[in-house]
Amino acid sequence: MQDAAALLARVRDRQPQIHCLTNAVALELSANVLLAVGAEPSLTGDLTTVGEFVRGCDALVVNLGMLDPTRAAAIEAGVAAAADGGRPWLLDPVKVERSAARRDVAQQLLAASPAAVRGNAAEIEALARTGVEPARTLAVRHGCTVAATGAEDLVVDATRSGTILNGSPLMTRVTAVGCAGSALVGAFLAVEADAWRATRAALLVLGVAGEMAAERARGPGSFAVELLDALSHLGAAELREYGRVR
Amino acid sequence: MQDAAALLARVRDRQPQIHCLTNAVALELSANVLLAVGAEPSLTGDLTTVGEFVRGCDALVVNLGMLDPTRAAAIEAGVAAAADGGRPWLLDPVKVERSAARRDVAQQLLAASPAAVRGNAAEIEALARTGVEPARTLAVRHGCTVAATGAEDLVVDATRSGTILNGSPLMTRVTAVGCAGSALVGAFLAVEADAWRATRAALLVLGVAGEMAAERARGPGSFAVELLDALSHLGAAELREYGRVR
Amino acid sequence: MQDAAALLARVRDRQPQIHCLTNAVALELSANVLLAVGAEPSLTGDLTTVGEFVRGCDALVVNLGMLDPTRAAAIEAGVAAAADGGRPWLLDPVKVERSAARRDVAQQLLAASPAAVRGNAAEIEALARTGVEPARTLAVRHGCTVAATGAEDLVVDATRSGTILNGSPLMTRVTAVGCAGSALVGAFLAVEADAWRATRAALLVLGVAGEMAAERARGPGSFAVELLDALSHLGAAELREYGRVR
Repeated sequence: MQDAAALLARVRDRQPQIHCLTNAVALELSANVLLAVGAEPSLTGDLTTVGEFVRGCDALVVNLGMLDPTRAAAIEAGVAAAADGGRPWLLDPVKVERSAARRDVAQQLLAASPAAVRGNAAEIEALARTGVEPARTLAVRHGCTVAATGAEDLVVDATRSGTILNGSPLMTRVTAVGCAGSALVGAFLAVEADAWRATRAALLVLGVAGEMAAERARGPGSFAVELLDALSHLGAAELREYGRVR
Repeated sequence: MQDAAALLARVRDRQPQIHCLTNAVALELSANVLLAVGAEPSLTGDLTTVGEFVRGCDALVVNLGMLDPTRAAAIEAGVAAAADGGRPWLLDPVKVERSAARRDVAQQLLAASPAAVRGNAAEIEALARTGVEPARTLAVRHGCTVAATGAEDLVVDATRSGTILNGSPLMTRVTAVGCAGSALVGAFLAVEADAWRATRAALLVLGVAGEMAAERARGPGSFAVELLDALSHLGAAELREYGRVR
Repeated sequence: MQDAAALLARVRDRQPQIHCLTNAVALELSANVLLAVGAEPSLTGDLTTVGEFVRGCDALVVNLGMLDPTRAAAIEAGVAAAADGGRPWLLDPVKVERSAARRDVAQQLLAASPAAVRGNAAEIEALARTGVEPARTLAVRHGCTVAATGAEDLVVDATRSGTILNGSPLMTRVTAVGCAGSALVGAFLAVEADAWRATRAALLVLGVAGEMAAERARGPGSFAVELLDALSHLGAAELREYGRVR
């Protein structure tokens, strides 16, 4: 909890610039989640300017939802610029279990050294292609942190493992909450070089915010509103009160 | 009312996958309306993967708002995949009264056998090109269900006609409520083969949710929030209490 | 205040059609801000239909956020159609300080006679390329109204200057509020030929709505909701009570 509180404070203090190459339905919530914790989003997927934006940012978030050739090219350029500039980047392999073509793109991106991968259990399993411990399998194979989120969020790297028990079923009833969670991990990667700690802290913050929001919400519409409000003001006290990790 | 309540319960129970090929401004509300009733949206308009997604879905929603050549190609592929797989699909001819080119696309799509068409009165009139009973004209000509929504929603097929009196003027003060209504019809088409019953039920559910939301809202911002909340928890009791049909 | 109230009443009365060529993350809030004051948005960026839409509209809003070649071509066609039809248009030079290529596009568009330019201080400075009075410099050079928004909003043309002191820090914690402000200016340009008065009135209305919203909000999520509610019902009384201009 203390670690998450310290990293959240660091995000608010440093206001990192996070470039998101994400799908159209996730743009607004991703940007608003970043703004709610004090980070500054940029979002262009234009091939001619993405390099300028990524070189000026502190972390890059790559999301495969609604992937098309235009965004795939921007992602290739963005990942190259991130590698050039030593910026950490995250891969969110949205719905790779639904499309073989998209799974191939994700596998190529895994080979390009993301700092972290965040997906739901089905997405992580589709990438690992093994029945046992798919998140650990991926983390070891690619030397990165892998988070498989759901009712419980599992965060692993080659040697460490953590589970976050916070969250709310309403998080699956609002579109792009998972994608926005990936954007939030990006903000924490921007201020903490240890990707496992950054990822675990970001997902704990999101889970606690989700639980706080669910207490006040009367459905998915008000939940989305409350989630942003909670993210903007939660701190060490709320993380201590609500946080449940293993 | 009973029919709408039964079909809504069926949507919540079966959680159908609805693929929406819709415009950028309608993506988020369409997805959130579907999630609010327990359906699962997918949204990709990428030509290389749309077939995989449509073959895996239970109904397809085709929306012509902000139509461009890329989405037109995806729509062609999506409609072909829906026809191949025997999936029902809906056409939402957004703003065809504003563009001759878009009206031509809509006419071609009408010839490809949608299960249902939903538009506002101006859009349906622009497609029917007749002064009297444009919705009925379209329904007979193309053998489908046609809904012309507005202060009253008219739902017709070749032999049946129904009118829904529910709704709120605030539904026209929030962008993409009509488009999201089309997505909702898609969810009901996925669980009920009789397109007229499915369409009527979906629009009754939306109209009742709109009326419930308007009672609590203080403007269009809170109305959009309340609409999703109402969709997520309304049931047989609310449909009985609020529903007004003819 | 009286001028702003009168122009807002005119927007509500005439319900102007505003075409926005804007970035994907700003589409929804821009459309909803326009609908909240009674204007009617259209949004297509399709090259083959943008001319039809712009010729049928009352004002055009050009926003450079997430600019790519497709939208750049649509903007060129849209600006040409606006010039043909004598429609006023506004330029929002989003993040031109982050990209040399985008700054070049903005400079070309400035030469095409926008009625107004709205950006934040960094964007206006990047275009003016001078240390002193960048907004005035731009206004004189291009014969248009220039607004540099921030904690205070400065609105100048070649001979007049006004400052709006309203607003809230929460306006920078929700994505695309600036872009939506540009859309709102578009609605006022549609009903008032004096671009300086139109721009000043629109930004005063937005600032007052922001202040009213901030009083009720508990964070950025509820702020966005309250902003739309406030825009939909504020009038002469609220402008008188809250408005602070210099």
